[in-house]
Formats: sequence, structure tokens, C-alpha cells
Amino acid sequence: MSAHRITATYRIETAYPLMEAIETMAGEQSTGTFIRLPGETDAMRDAYGAHIERVTELEPVGTPSLPGAGVPRAGAAGGGDPLWRRAEVVLSWSLENCGPSLPNLLATVAGNLFELRPFSGLRILDITMPEAFAAAYPGPRFGIAGTRRLAGVEHGPLIGTIIKPSVGLGPQDTAEAARTLCAAGIDFIKDDELQADGPHCPFDERARAVMRVVNEQADRTGRKVMYAFNITGDLDQMRRRHDLVLSLGGTCVMASLNSVGLAGMIELGRFSQLPIHAHRNGWGYLSREPSLGWSYVAWQKIWRLAGADHMHVNGLRNKFCEPDDSVIASARSCLTPMFDSKPCTVMPVFSSGQSARQAPDTYAALGSADLIYAAGGGIMGHPDGPAAGVASLRESWDAALAGIPLAEHAKTRPALAKAIEAYA
Amino acid sequence: MSAHRITATYRIETAYPLMEAIETMAGEQSTGTFIRLPGETDAMRDAYGAHIERVTELEPVGTPSLPGAGVPRAGAAGGGDPLWRRAEVVLSWSLENCGPSLPNLLATVAGNLFELRPFSGLRILDITMPEAFAAAYPGPRFGIAGTRRLAGVEHGPLIGTIIKPSVGLGPQDTAEAARTLCAAGIDFIKDDELQADGPHCPFDERARAVMRVVNEQADRTGRKVMYAFNITGDLDQMRRRHDLVLSLGGTCVMASLNSVGLAGMIELGRFSQLPIHAHRNGWGYLSREPSLGWSYVAWQKIWRLAGADHMHVNGLRNKFCEPDDSVIASARSCLTPMFDSKPCTVMPVFSSGQSARQAPDTYAALGSADLIYAAGGGIMGHPDGPAAGVASLRESWDAALAGIPLAEHAKTRPALAKAIEAYA
Repeated sequence: MSAHRITATYRIETAYPLMEAIETMAGEQSTGTFIRLPGETDAMRDAYGAHIERVTELEPVGTPSLPGAGVPRAGAAGGGDPLWRRAEVVLSWSLENCGPSLPNLLATVAGNLFELRPFSGLRILDITMPEAFAAAYPGPRFGIAGTRRLAGVEHGPLIGTIIKPSVGLGPQDTAEAARTLCAAGIDFIKDDELQADGPHCPFDERARAVMRVVNEQADRTGRKVMYAFNITGDLDQMRRRHDLVLSLGGTCVMASLNSVGLAGMIELGRFSQLPIHAHRNGWGYLSREPSLGWSYVAWQKIWRLAGADHMHVNGLRNKFCEPDDSVIASARSCLTPMFDSKPCTVMPVFSSGQSARQAPDTYAALGSADLIYAAGGGIMGHPDGPAAGVASLRESWDAALAGIPLAEHAKTRPALAKAIEAYA
Repeated sequence: MSAHRITATYRIETAYPLMEAIETMAGEQSTGTFIRLPGETDAMRDAYGAHIERVTELEPVGTPSLPGAGVPRAGAAGGGDPLWRRAEVVLSWSLENCGPSLPNLLATVAGNLFELRPFSGLRILDITMPEAFAAAYPGPRFGIAGTRRLAGVEHGPLIGTIIKPSVGLGPQDTAEAARTLCAAGIDFIKDDELQADGPHCPFDERARAVMRVVNEQADRTGRKVMYAFNITGDLDQMRRRHDLVLSLGGTCVMASLNSVGLAGMIELGRFSQLPIHAHRNGWGYLSREPSLGWSYVAWQKIWRLAGADHMHVNGLRNKFCEPDDSVIASARSCLTPMFDSKPCTVMPVFSSGQSARQAPDTYAALGSADLIYAAGGGIMGHPDGPAAGVASLRESWDAALAGIPLAEHAKTRPALAKAIEAYA
């Protein structure tokens, strides 16, 4: 397989003869149509058709995972009772087909194929792109090192939080919440994804009010808390809001990936002079059914190359439906280099039901503290208040990094001890 | 329910007590977090919390549709064997929360909620927006009337096709294919979604070569075939390609919605001086599992308001997995006004395995011929060649519009007769 080819790995499920199904998939995503046309020569197929690089058969299943797929004829899948065969498949495409274009890569590796008749399951597991893509896009401008520098956190995770309630607070209320959190010793604060520029809490007023608090605190302490302002909106709005945050001395902007979309995020990646905190809300509809959609390992590569600096990955024992091993695989993928010339590594953001309790397991599973560890109720709901909440998270990570059992570390640290009890 | 509120309708499935699950959903998408915070007052909840407007319980199911959801305790769903209760739920939000912003509407109605622990199924069925959204976005600039005017087709469907093979043809080959199709009497041609600006078929060369053919044909016949050039790419590329198409006398641009994303499509909607042909490739991963994701009825509203003029809806007896009633519901939604002040109606595009055979059923089910009817193999694969292929589609639609049975109409029309036989 040439270094100039795009590849995509899929897990498929089909009642059709396996190779017939895979050839349909490869054809649909390159030179094919439902009737072979006069202009479609073998040489053309070889140059521009998708190549089947690898097929690894998996255990079959007795019922189809998704409805609507075809069943060609009784016994076609191997005689006797109908079986739905499963396989991991790698396809590849010449860069000649779509060039180093992220939006057109999407249509190529994740276009019409999810709807094809032979498939009762089709999920994209991974993507690789040739180096030409690294040259065509900025990737994260700040990444891990740039984020640490701006946040003034050299080692360990950035301890972060989300302004809550998500909506309902006005600009001054938000600034007051930020003041409390700054005083509590936080490293990182973000707007909720539901809070952008509603009439009740206009962006400009909120940014000005919050940055007054953040700048005052920075003047006092010499360290500026990183606040990720949610600039999600139309492109001209995002550009204007970014410029305002920059002019106010802010150090981060946030955008919802599924709301802004790819061309918008690429544009933001090109013009942003601040780290981009990428929120994945909506991820559930892309991934929740295991036999359909996207794995995070494939999906996050697109956004990192487009310019995201922080990527949300959920958290261990979260309030959502994702199992822990999937969370860790996501976080690990954010820390895995994409290209030799441009690693594009970003900070994974752990969030959702997080408290001091999950830090040791998170570190043990990931083996890195290059991350943002965000807790909402896990800080504001601490029995002794937000400063104790932040302290409990730091103490928990200290224990994790030093390899000290949490209970032992908590013996002389009341904030941690109370957190362990409160979030049990 | 006020005219100033946003609403969304969902179908949910849960093992939790029904109202508890729905309150979790409403809370997550507005003022809630997993611990009730001091700042969260009842007045704030009333003003900015999501309201539960309607709950209609549906038949329960005996097994969960999606994995990973919680089961609170034995018998919680009604005693005895565990049941997963299903309901149709309408939530509403104050416009104060997110303002008339399409990207932020997405985060509000379709953000984190698909991942919430109580839900073993959650699908968004419909959205309504207050009139403020109609004022904030352009909607389709051309729509049905503008498309008919530019294509020179006053009545009946635009008979369309896709250049095939999807990839592999160079610019001159594409122009030759367009020449054949123009000579065959076609109304509308589109690039494939896989063909944008790859090194093998650069956009500019293709556009120049194709428009020479299209313009020559227009000079000869007085009617210009509408060619939808796939301008999908980064934003500056899309802008430049749009301007080139406009300067060459082209009458349509195409963009892949899931590749470009919402902020990019809104920007395109604002600057485009040509109808926007919106391709939905990738739609499968958003919709294929019936208990997850998006219904097209909800999804298409977003893109129409952003500025799409034509929306793909698949076709009857298609080569994909979608049932016919879903296709018709999608097409009907495109023709249903969105706002009193701005109907935003667009042309549905029927495509995928279409031939002369499906026209009468399509018309009977939809009751309208305000559509693009696109066939690939259904034209190029006609036994008597592409002119006969186009003729067979027109004859089939003539029969449908006149209420004449297809077989009868075919008796004196050999192109139609052969199509009925060839595509059986």
C-alpha cells in the first residue's frame, strides 16, 4: 500500500457473500454505479477505484444489527440458517481522486456507503491520510505545549470546570461564577455548549465581564486562568467573537464541532490566534449504535488536522452510556501522532460526572497527564465549597502521579477525604 | 406554547420511570447538571429550563434498542419483567437561551442528549423555530421557481443525471460526457459527490471544459442545461469555485452538507448567487438506526434555512436501505413551508437506482412534480442509448402527470417500452 494512498478501516456486517458486499462498497465509493458503464475501463478501475487492502473475518451474528439491509438468497452466507457475516475491511484510494481535502476525504471514506443495501452494519474504525494532508492544513497551533504555556501549568492535568447552570446566568452572574472559580484555584473554565450568544447572556457582555475578573486575578497571582469562550455561531460571528476575546487578553475559544461543521472549523483553525477548545456535543448520534457510524479514533483525526487543540473524550464512570475502555481509547488517540511531519497531538478533555474519585484510574489507564480534567458538580458540589473541590482534584491527581493509593493520600487531606465520601 | 419558543419532538426509549427520564433530558439541555447547584433557582428553571410540552406514550419493547443505557432497579418501569418504555416527547426552549442561531440551535436540540444514561433510544423527529430564525437566515434564494427559471423547465420534473463513473474521468472526458447528455435532451447534470477537485480532474479545468459544452448547447437550443458543479471544499476554495462557475455562465453549484457542515453552508448560502444543490452523502450514519439520530423531517429544515435550494431525498425502490414511505415523507417535508414569512420550500432530488419505472409511483405518492428526478444507469444504461434513456423518463412522467397507466403509454413509445423491460 503506497504512502500516497488514503485508507479507511471499517467493521461491516452482511448477509451477502462477503467479497461481493465489499466490492459493492469499494465500487460505490469510487468508480461504480449499479450498471457497468461503457466508459469504465479496467485501467480506470485500477487507478481510481478503491482497492480492497485487507479483509479479516470476525464471528458472524444470527440477527442483523440494523434494519433495511438486503438478504440475497437463502443460504448465501454459508448454507443452513442465514448468518450475517462480519469482517474488518481496509479500503484505500489514490490521492488523485480527491486531493488533500478534508471535506472531500469525508465524502470518500464516509459518504453514501452507510446506506448500501448489503450492509446490516457498517462502522468506520480508522482513517489514515498521506503526508500531503499535513501540508494542506494547519493542525493544532497550540496543542499540549501551547496550552500549558498559556495556562501556566507545566506539569499534571489542567484542572477545569464548566460554568453551571449551563444557561440562565447573565453576563455579570457568569463573571461572579468565574470569580469564585478563580479564587478556588482553578486552571481552566469553559462556557457550557448551550451558552453562546443568547439574548439573556450576550457574548460580548459576558466576555468583557469575565475577562475583567480573569485579568484582575492574573494581575494578582501572575497566572492567568484559561477561559474557553463558546464562540460557536455563524462564521462572521465566530471571527468577531474570536477577535474580541483576543483583544480582551483571553487565551482560549471554544466551538461545538457538530454545530460549526468541517469547513467552518477549518476556517477557524486558519484564523484563530488562540487555542481551540473543541466540544463534541452531538457525538452520541454519530456513535451510539456500535454497528453504525463513527469510532472516535477515526473521527478525531479530522478535527485535529483542521486545527482543534483540545478534544472532548467523556470521562471514566461518566453520566453517559460510553464504557470506560472506549473513553480511554479516545483519549489515547488524541495523544497519538498523526503524521511524521506534523504530530497534531492535542489535549484530551475529560468531562461528565467527574470528581476526585476517577483521577487515579484515569492516569493508570492513560499513562499521561497531558489532559484537561473538567468537573462541574465535582467542584461546585463539594461539601466544603469550590476551593475544596479544586483542591480535592489536585490532591487526587498528585496521588495518581506519585503512585500513592487514594485512601492513603486522603488521610491527611480533608478536601480529598470529603470528596471521596461525597461522590461515592 | 409561545410563538417565541423553539420546539423539538423526540422518540425516546427508557427503562427508567418515564417522567424521570424526560426530566433528565430537559435538564441536560438547559439548566441542569448532575448535582443541583445553589445558583439554580425555580424562577431560573422556569425562564430558561426546557419545558416538557407533551408526552405521548407508545408501545413498550422487551429489549433495549441501543446498548449502554442504565436500568435503575428491577421493576421500576412497571413491575414484573423489565420493560423499555417508549414515548414521543415535545420539549421547548425560550429563544432567550440561544437566540436565532442555527449552530446553537443544534447544540440545544441535538447536543449531548443522545448519550444520556437513561436512554436506550433517542431520535429527533421534528424541530420548529420561531419567526426570528426566518429573519436571521437567507433560506433558499432560488428554490423551486428560481431553479425552473434558470433551467428553462416550466412544468414537470427536471430530468437529471450524474456524471459516471463517479471518479476517473478527466476534465475533457467529463465535458464529453456532458456533451452526450446535453445532446440526449437532459435538463440537469451533476458532478458525483466523489468528484470535486482531485489532481486527476481539477475543478477549474473541468468547469471550463463543461461550460464550453453547456454554453454551446444553450446557444444552439436557447435553453441552458443546469450543471451542478461540486464545489465542496474549504471555504476559500468554495468561494473561488463559485465565482468561477458564475463567471463561466454556470447556473448551479453543489455542496455535500456533511462535508461542509453548518457554518460553511450558512456562509455559502449568504454569498452564493447560484442555486445550491445540497447532497446528503453520509446521511446513513445520522439516520440508519431507527431508534437513534435524526429523522430527515427535522434535519432538512436546518439546511433549507441555511440556503439549500435542492435537497437529496433518495428514491423509490432505491439501491439503499431506506423504505419508500420514508423517502416520500422526506420529499414532502422539502415542499412544506417552514415559516409564514419565508416558506423555504426547496426541490427534492430523487436519486439512487432510479429509472422510468418509478415515476408514476413517485408522483402518485408525492402529488407534485416540483422535483429533480436523477438517473445514472437509468439513462446511460438504456439499451438504445442516453437519448432514449432521457426520453423514457420524460414519457414516464408524462404518463404519471396525465394519469395514464405506464404500460398503456409505453405501447406507442419504444424508449419507454424498452426502459420498462431493461430496468425490471
